[in-house]
Amino acid sequence: MYKVKVFVTLRESVLDPQGTAVEQSLHHLGYKEASEVRIGKFIELTVEETENVETRVKEMCEKLLANTVIEDYRFEIEEVAKV
Amino acid sequence: MYKVKVFVTLRESVLDPQGTAVEQSLHHLGYKEASEVRIGKFIELTVEETENVETRVKEMCEKLLANTVIEDYRFEIEEVAKV
Repeated sequence: MYKVKVFVTLRESVLDPQGTAVEQSLHHLGYKEASEVRIGKFIELTVEETENVETRVKEMCEKLLANTVIEDYRFEIEEVAKV
Repeated sequence: MYKVKVFVTLRESVLDPQGTAVEQSLHHLGYKEASEVRIGKFIELTVEETENVETRVKEMCEKLLANTVIEDYRFEIEEVAKV
């Protein structure tokens, strides 16, 4: 069994209005030292025994978890003992 | 200067309809081996020179970046040379 963590982020070239809004809010709250705020997705999932887990996770990202036109993704796979 | 990564996740006890929807979609796409899908936020930001950066980032999370009633958060702080 595997614990998978997927990090989906907007590409550098893509505008991030949500990040900009959060940055302004932080400034309003007095945290002027914060900048370059980017908001992405952090997806955790469990993958049962499968042969090519890396390929399968890559496919899941390409087909569903990330919009590869405007987003980048990376993932970490950790093998864990079956509970 | 610091690069900060914040991971915001729903508490275990909180239902994750978005995660459930993604899980079902993965199954429809043929990835039956995927389960326990949980969707969270991955926030990246830069923090200028400040004395108690850890305390300040914790405050940012408590006040804005995470809804501590239903979400947990953790963060990683990496010092980087000023560009």
